[in-house]
Amino acid sequence: MSLNKRARSFGQWLALGSVVGAVCGVASAVFLYLLDQATHVRTSHEAIVYTLPLAGLGIGALYARWGTPIRGGNNLVIDTVHEGDKQLPVRMAPMVLLGTVLTHLFGGSAGREGTAVQMGASLADAVAHRFRVSPATRRELLAAGIAGGFGSVFGTPIAGTVFGLEVVCVGRMSYEALVPALVSAVVGDLVTRSLGIHHTVYPTPAALPLTPGVLGKWLLFGVAVAGVAVAFVELVHFLKKRLEKSVPSLPLRMALGGVLLVVLWKVVGTSDYLGLGVPTIERSFVDPTLPPEAFALKLLFTAITLSAGFLGGEVTPLFFVGAALGNVLARLLGLPLDLAAGVGLAALFGAAANTPLALSLMAVELLGAGVLPHVVIVTVTAYLLTGQRGIYPAQRIAQLKH
Amino acid sequence: MSLNKRARSFGQWLALGSVVGAVCGVASAVFLYLLDQATHVRTSHEAIVYTLPLAGLGIGALYARWGTPIRGGNNLVIDTVHEGDKQLPVRMAPMVLLGTVLTHLFGGSAGREGTAVQMGASLADAVAHRFRVSPATRRELLAAGIAGGFGSVFGTPIAGTVFGLEVVCVGRMSYEALVPALVSAVVGDLVTRSLGIHHTVYPTPAALPLTPGVLGKWLLFGVAVAGVAVAFVELVHFLKKRLEKSVPSLPLRMALGGVLLVVLWKVVGTSDYLGLGVPTIERSFVDPTLPPEAFALKLLFTAITLSAGFLGGEVTPLFFVGAALGNVLARLLGLPLDLAAGVGLAALFGAAANTPLALSLMAVELLGAGVLPHVVIVTVTAYLLTGQRGIYPAQRIAQLKH
Repeated sequence: MSLNKRARSFGQWLALGSVVGAVCGVASAVFLYLLDQATHVRTSHEAIVYTLPLAGLGIGALYARWGTPIRGGNNLVIDTVHEGDKQLPVRMAPMVLLGTVLTHLFGGSAGREGTAVQMGASLADAVAHRFRVSPATRRELLAAGIAGGFGSVFGTPIAGTVFGLEVVCVGRMSYEALVPALVSAVVGDLVTRSLGIHHTVYPTPAALPLTPGVLGKWLLFGVAVAGVAVAFVELVHFLKKRLEKSVPSLPLRMALGGVLLVVLWKVVGTSDYLGLGVPTIERSFVDPTLPPEAFALKLLFTAITLSAGFLGGEVTPLFFVGAALGNVLARLLGLPLDLAAGVGLAALFGAAANTPLALSLMAVELLGAGVLPHVVIVTVTAYLLTGQRGIYPAQRIAQLKH
Repeated sequence: MSLNKRARSFGQWLALGSVVGAVCGVASAVFLYLLDQATHVRTSHEAIVYTLPLAGLGIGALYARWGTPIRGGNNLVIDTVHEGDKQLPVRMAPMVLLGTVLTHLFGGSAGREGTAVQMGASLADAVAHRFRVSPATRRELLAAGIAGGFGSVFGTPIAGTVFGLEVVCVGRMSYEALVPALVSAVVGDLVTRSLGIHHTVYPTPAALPLTPGVLGKWLLFGVAVAGVAVAFVELVHFLKKRLEKSVPSLPLRMALGGVLLVVLWKVVGTSDYLGLGVPTIERSFVDPTLPPEAFALKLLFTAITLSAGFLGGEVTPLFFVGAALGNVLARLLGLPLDLAAGVGLAALFGAAANTPLALSLMAVELLGAGVLPHVVIVTVTAYLLTGQRGIYPAQRIAQLKH
């Protein structure tokens, strides 16, 4: 390809990627603003959590009425990238936004990346159709939408870029969409920040020289992370199947999920496991008295929330589970608390979502270079040991792990 | 695959990867020790550079006599990964080690990654044959050898891991060898360090918030890096063809290359462009009076050295060229000197070798997280604009850049 052609193609990617990124960035900013308001209302009026079953009934009714074409969520996005099927419904963006904000307002334990990815991809697909691009370009713009959504919602454009490329297949990453994904993630992040959004600032663990002893501890750590990742994936899968079989009606199923969560909330006696749980994530980095069962409880709250049909994603709850697990393992194995919390935070989602490189880069963007090489060692170990399963069943297995 | 099977496979990778990594680590330590001695001798007895043509004659005679099966160097390694052809000759390791040390002793301008990759891969292939592994496992051990060599010689195990996966194809990265490559790179790095080797410590540029203005500057920066990468690749290609045609005898060709380098050295009037050039790399981070032509001169010295047939690699000379270029661009564009030098350092080799992710990670390992997201933006821009060419013609084009 001539230099002229390359320059033109670069210009095209700059333009289209920027449009997708700008749209993703605005959507993320609106989403994060509303989420912040919802979390604020819930924490200052906790009695609202008692109405979570009612909220489930309402969101369920909404999705039962208008949500059928978008029920696949992230899996529908991944399928569309592979199969180039019909356009992702434009309604996906507002519906997943509303569903997630309501989930958090009433105390469900869910995350943000599902929402960001679905908003980003459906908006990107609208851009692709508006500009009548070729099927190949459309696929790349979908990856750019995933990257732009992920990068802007967490303030981590490089992790967003690699996530957009890495999430669609297990075991292989194609660079086809590298440039549009990077443009979209960088522009999306810039737009979200310029709209006044501030992201959580995490601690910066000090660098720790890797010794054979430390390496051995990280391998055990990785085995534990893999075990928890498998437990989460299997529990969500099991609960989802079981609930769908027992209660075929979505509104009633979500109401039942709400009841379970309210009961669990009262039994546990703390609100720490509702919503995103950012305060406990921050505590995991510094508090050696964090309850050792915290990770398991957050895992349970999140599995019930998501398998019942509430909206959101897995990143932040799995950050909580991973960081709290890392906190416990640090005390057991004799590792620095902040580093272990940071490594656990990134590794658990990296293993559960089969995106080890994206999450290692996310750890660097959020926590600094001191997490290297530790976070890669743990994430790759856990990624290998979880096998072919993951939180996104639509991922194509390009390469068996072995 | 059952958990039991996964655990066994993990155990196998830990064992085989560790063996390969340990061998690579020892080879890198010996290499770095000898290189240090050679550089010390040369800088304290500069008259030795006048004998570079004689050294070329000697190394050329050595390679003409015993080097025919290994002349492909890194390209032979990449071909073997793809085609699973006959075993890489065991002599590759000692010959490339000796050739590189002599090249540096007499003042040639070359790097280290070629040597590290060829030693690592040929030793890994010996391990593969010793243990009579399957062809698939052998391919993965070869990647582990590349990763172990690269990771241990630069003290950057994560960059080494990704380099081992990324270098064999352009536009796609397979995770097949992820675990053995990581094990080998981590163990190799541990072994090299435990043998008393210290790596260059680079400055840690402060984080710089990305604004639209800064982003625009990085795009121009990326275009400049791409231009220099193309100039380097094409110049080496042109000189190599031209020299091979004019002087078919390798010893005479290398002697001629030596003469050219000595003349250039005397014309330029400084020894800054001989050898690795680490002092000038360090200067690029802090000195706003670095000669603006430094990058072009180092490029010329290196292109002559390598196209004449001297041994080594491209990483450290291209670090020099990229850092010195970054220094100049920082002054032209108004960017922080240390950050621009660091970004240039990583981006130029990343673009020239078609390994944008490995070099972005290398920048983080060497220079800290402050280089993000800048280094990725520049490296990917330059990677795209260099087109399908690169310093390793054996790379398979899995995916056209476009």
